[in-house]
Amino acid sequence: MSIREMNQEECRDLLVRLGFGRLGCANNNQPYVVPIYFAYDSNCLFGFSTAGQKIEWMRSNALVCVEADEVLGQDNWTSVLVFGRYEELPDNPKYAARRLDAHALLEKRTFWWRQAIATSQTRSEELRPVPILYCIHIDRMTGHQASPDK
Amino acid sequence: MSIREMNQEECRDLLVRLGFGRLGCANNNQPYVVPIYFAYDSNCLFGFSTAGQKIEWMRSNALVCVEADEVLGQDNWTSVLVFGRYEELPDNPKYAARRLDAHALLEKRTFWWRQAIATSQTRSEELRPVPILYCIHIDRMTGHQASPDK
Repeated sequence: MSIREMNQEECRDLLVRLGFGRLGCANNNQPYVVPIYFAYDSNCLFGFSTAGQKIEWMRSNALVCVEADEVLGQDNWTSVLVFGRYEELPDNPKYAARRLDAHALLEKRTFWWRQAIATSQTRSEELRPVPILYCIHIDRMTGHQASPDK
Repeated sequence: MSIREMNQEECRDLLVRLGFGRLGCANNNQPYVVPIYFAYDSNCLFGFSTAGQKIEWMRSNALVCVEADEVLGQDNWTSVLVFGRYEELPDNPKYAARRLDAHALLEKRTFWWRQAIATSQTRSEELRPVPILYCIHIDRMTGHQASPDK
């Protein structure tokens, strides 16, 4: 197996195509990792969630990491790592235009809504599935691709 | 889609079966997420790596999170979340017995060695592929299973 570094365009292409990865956030140096769906656009990853631990943690510490990979075999995989910052897009006039753009991207993946709502059903608190829209601003991005030896 | 909480035995079974997940560590509240292979035994996840950023970060902050999931479809998936602490198993007499046990588990997955060595080839530093054996002590573990509506 050999591993090579991917360039920025290749990293972006993988993020656009996969739209799925694992988000890492941290609170008092305790990391927390959850699977997320996202849409890539303009150096941002747009995501969607109901209220919960990851939203609370990202509100208190905006530093996040997103890892997205495609594993075809033990010696045949691609992995992209994003370091970025969380920004919430609340439902008020200041964010109206960006929310519209984000919704247009998210509408292509309607199952996000179903998943966010279903997740809230497992919680004991009486949480209404309030939709929270956010974007991860990409500060730095790296990628590696492994290929089997010929 | 409905989502239910898994019990501890179900969580363990998934970790044993998958042996693959994403490890989150953090340094100065910056999270970092990487795919890892592991072997579950006695409330620990044993792993293997060459020197690098994740090892350096876990040495300075032992708090970690491991997420392992099996996605069969958008409404048909299982995800287990482990909160734990990193402990290195260095090559000295104090750790000899535990290293033997860990090696016995790891030998069942010989490709780990290949992957760890190949990863080191991509680094610009002149790093020798020094094998570092570690375990993640599981402090807390939760799991969720989503099933499609009938």
